[in-house]
Amino acid sequence: MAAHSGRVLAGELARHVGSGVLLRGWVHRQRDLGGVCFLLLRDRSGLCQVVFRSAPTDGAGNPLTLESVVEVRGAVAANGKAPGGYEVQAESLTVISSAAPELPLAVNQDPGQLSLEAMLEHRMVSLRNPKTLSIFRLQAEIVRLFAEHLRSEGFTEIKSSKLIGSGTEGGTGLFAVEYFDRTVYLAQSPQLYKQAMVAAGLERVFEIGMAYRAEKHDTPRHINEYVSLDVEMAFIDSEHDLMDLEQRLLGAIFAGLERDAAGSLTQWNARVPDAAAVAAIPRLTHDEARAVVGAAGGRRVYEINPEGERLLCEWAAAEHGVDAVFVYGYPRRKRPFYTFPSAGNKTMSFDLLFRGQEITSGGRRINDHGALVESLQRFGLEPAAMADYLSVFRYGCPPHGGFAIGLERLTQTILGLASVKQATLFPRDRKRVRP
Amino acid sequence: MAAHSGRVLAGELARHVGSGVLLRGWVHRQRDLGGVCFLLLRDRSGLCQVVFRSAPTDGAGNPLTLESVVEVRGAVAANGKAPGGYEVQAESLTVISSAAPELPLAVNQDPGQLSLEAMLEHRMVSLRNPKTLSIFRLQAEIVRLFAEHLRSEGFTEIKSSKLIGSGTEGGTGLFAVEYFDRTVYLAQSPQLYKQAMVAAGLERVFEIGMAYRAEKHDTPRHINEYVSLDVEMAFIDSEHDLMDLEQRLLGAIFAGLERDAAGSLTQWNARVPDAAAVAAIPRLTHDEARAVVGAAGGRRVYEINPEGERLLCEWAAAEHGVDAVFVYGYPRRKRPFYTFPSAGNKTMSFDLLFRGQEITSGGRRINDHGALVESLQRFGLEPAAMADYLSVFRYGCPPHGGFAIGLERLTQTILGLASVKQATLFPRDRKRVRP
Repeated sequence: MAAHSGRVLAGELARHVGSGVLLRGWVHRQRDLGGVCFLLLRDRSGLCQVVFRSAPTDGAGNPLTLESVVEVRGAVAANGKAPGGYEVQAESLTVISSAAPELPLAVNQDPGQLSLEAMLEHRMVSLRNPKTLSIFRLQAEIVRLFAEHLRSEGFTEIKSSKLIGSGTEGGTGLFAVEYFDRTVYLAQSPQLYKQAMVAAGLERVFEIGMAYRAEKHDTPRHINEYVSLDVEMAFIDSEHDLMDLEQRLLGAIFAGLERDAAGSLTQWNARVPDAAAVAAIPRLTHDEARAVVGAAGGRRVYEINPEGERLLCEWAAAEHGVDAVFVYGYPRRKRPFYTFPSAGNKTMSFDLLFRGQEITSGGRRINDHGALVESLQRFGLEPAAMADYLSVFRYGCPPHGGFAIGLERLTQTILGLASVKQATLFPRDRKRVRP
Repeated sequence: MAAHSGRVLAGELARHVGSGVLLRGWVHRQRDLGGVCFLLLRDRSGLCQVVFRSAPTDGAGNPLTLESVVEVRGAVAANGKAPGGYEVQAESLTVISSAAPELPLAVNQDPGQLSLEAMLEHRMVSLRNPKTLSIFRLQAEIVRLFAEHLRSEGFTEIKSSKLIGSGTEGGTGLFAVEYFDRTVYLAQSPQLYKQAMVAAGLERVFEIGMAYRAEKHDTPRHINEYVSLDVEMAFIDSEHDLMDLEQRLLGAIFAGLERDAAGSLTQWNARVPDAAAVAAIPRLTHDEARAVVGAAGGRRVYEINPEGERLLCEWAAAEHGVDAVFVYGYPRRKRPFYTFPSAGNKTMSFDLLFRGQEITSGGRRINDHGALVESLQRFGLEPAAMADYLSVFRYGCPPHGGFAIGLERLTQTILGLASVKQATLFPRDRKRVRP
């Protein structure tokens, strides 16, 4: 029998039928049928069945514990009943790292059995579950596809500081940091910096970085630290250029996930909108959106609350065949001071609602120095405290705008997870700062 | 004359000779020769010469100010003397955003004229300089190439929390954050989390994220917030597997920069080691390295200080034709508690020195629960306080290790910048938290 030198992954068995292989991985499950024992071995590529004539033991004659890391040598055989269609008939097993016998929670069962609290309390163990881990494999692909698409449109990635002297939006909702002998704050967004880099001449920038919100929310859609996928672009006319860009971007991300994260989508029985659906995402003004929500609920609506966001997506699904809708032209008082105003006290701003959740907020920004000073004052902010920010606009700044997508919330929405915390490796909320 | 619809970039003129084009960009330089005026227009693709019969003005008849954003229509003509070989004969100019007349520092001159202090004090303006901006174009390519190479070897990108309950290395050098009603800290590294994700089954992970060091350094090589390019990998035997990986990784990054960031390298008159040089990087044990430094200095050496790091790189350049050297096998007392020990109170750890600077630190980690508890105690740390971390090792953890590269320091070293702060968009040091 030919022996393959070096480790073979579970997902590579088809290439080694009839050969001897070396496997390494975690003991995912064991079944002793008397006379034949099955061990499911888990590695980064998936699961494979290993067959023993008698129950394998560690070196000292003790039974193998689940989650122990082992090395197996054996021969590959086709077996239509084994996961993936192949199995390994074991010749030897060595324990590399022995797991304690009692797991705090089951790794090899559907995580739907677990409470969110249990999942997070024992995060180091719950993350071992393949279905749970598949969330983060998909998330890694979102990050890659986001960057790849933007680069294809001439965007440059930036990395801006998360430690700021004061908040761009007035100082509420900020976490304070003791920075040597003074106090600074964790940035809520890279807003100032992405605008600065557009004006500095990069024109098109994106950033993938942490953002912090010191808000006491305790909902399935809020966390206090999240990855913000930020985009900013020069030489736009209005928020419609940004919605166009986001449709191209989401189209590329969804098509890429379908192609490269099919396993994760299957695990969660999830689907992404196809290219035609993304192209069909309707755009409603804020007033039109209120009317749609009002008509659905049978009463006049002033604010679009989470229930309204759900209704709008249902409307879009029924009318346009896609579970998403852009809402644009928000009133000025609802948007940050830097938002570009339009007629009737509206703004060139937009949100994207997807499957009932807001996943993006964006808009054109004020690029005129005088207009920005005026807007700061209108919002009760002090221009003198924003001198660095204002200097971006003093020396020639093109019309520009951008948007941000919350990575965890997008992941949650794509996979249909009950809580955004499931889409966060180590979520931080009001009560939780560990592990 | 055919007119191209839509904006054309400075770098695209060759494709439009004889046609009318629309340009948009910043006024980089103006020269009035009487009868003919030259305007250098800067956009994200570069510079182009625009020719006017008389000095252009803004709408109100005032002279154009440097850094104003303008729109120009005109015809493209070949001109061997113009930058890039083409120029635009202007027909009209419109000011999109007018710059204030007095710039706090010159944008269109070599930044070598400026002090670091001036550059950082007026960061929003100094970043407009094309040579300065080229630093960050190269940096963006490093980030891309780092991720692309690791993905090609089966690594998964992770995003871990930067808010931690306590330090992994004993609590010194941490910035405290007021987190609701308690105190947490900014993470010094994703060490714990990348190990956790290796053990959770991803096996090979990388992270691109901020790291924080509350150290009072004031040197050209230290900043208090930096981008850490982190790598962690399972199923290794020793630190040599990690040095092998880093050589493949750096080889891919350098080759990619040569190909895709040639403009930035040229601006700074910088070169990267070629594939043969990267493959030739020598490996010295810590003892051997001390001997080399001692021989160069003519006296016995116990610690390798920055001067020693320079001497080692000079030695490597002379002996191996590459300005870089791995030093491995550091004594245990010099490395963190989680470092895998080897014979003689050494560790399976390494640093990479490149052009006189340490750009990487890494090593194999302890993966045995009992050994880790023992090491914690040996370092005077309290295992009970590290329960989450320890749980990673309680339930089966493969042998593994990793390393981290400081993005800004690598950028600095490649381009030969005097200070790492030049390679940081918005550097944070003991005195500076703005802009």
